[in-house]
Amino acid sequence: MKNEQNEVTLANRAFYDALQARDLDAMDLVWSHGPETTCVHPGWHRLDGWSGIRRAWQNIFDNSRPWRVSCEDVRVRLTGELAIVACVEVILPFGAREPSDSARLQATNVFAREDGVWRMVHHHASPVASLEEANSEETVH
Amino acid sequence: MKNEQNEVTLANRAFYDALQARDLDAMDLVWSHGPETTCVHPGWHRLDGWSGIRRAWQNIFDNSRPWRVSCEDVRVRLTGELAIVACVEVILPFGAREPSDSARLQATNVFAREDGVWRMVHHHASPVASLEEANSEETVH
Repeated sequence: MKNEQNEVTLANRAFYDALQARDLDAMDLVWSHGPETTCVHPGWHRLDGWSGIRRAWQNIFDNSRPWRVSCEDVRVRLTGELAIVACVEVILPFGAREPSDSARLQATNVFAREDGVWRMVHHHASPVASLEEANSEETVH
Repeated sequence: MKNEQNEVTLANRAFYDALQARDLDAMDLVWSHGPETTCVHPGWHRLDGWSGIRRAWQNIFDNSRPWRVSCEDVRVRLTGELAIVACVEVILPFGAREPSDSARLQATNVFAREDGVWRMVHHHASPVASLEEANSEETVH
């Protein structure tokens, strides 16, 4: 189990490495390519199926500037062939120096083991409001 | 498998019934009570462990007005003792009539089977930007 947790942690890190490198070929290796694969980018509606998800990554990489991406506060829950990773994504635009310039996103990543390899089958990322925003807004739920 | 999918779909519906009813006792039955249980409310940082998650629900229910809650576009992925539900939450404040008054949230819900019963072990909900907002904002990723 310990070994599988490590495998999932490495698969999760490979996703953030691909995101930082803005590398579509690396994303191809990270993700499951089935029609069941799903992805929720911050503020977007859900994308269903790898072909649409891949097009969205292509679009994001074409339109974004270099950034540093790291991942904090990682929790892995694993059973059999399915694993959930909850973590915080920290995205710092290249050249920015202040931690306040970074974006912090809550992420839920799901991996399924396919032929012995953990592939991402669902990604859900959403922004965390700053403390001031959180205090001034009414929460829906 | 079909039967298990139905069980998970019912467990997911029980969550939204509890949310609509703003019923903490019903939430007690829906959720797994372990320290590994996690929850991301829209814009919030992640809550880890049932006791803190329960306090947050209590706080939300104490400070919210009646609403109708429904769930659309449901996808279930299940293997062994773990199941992922991706869906869209539609929250309509009581008395509102226009669909435009409703909040639409992307949700990822994770259930684990404990002693034969599917319990929620992770919930992640986040707002979907309206089309106008989406077009006017730069996407982080």
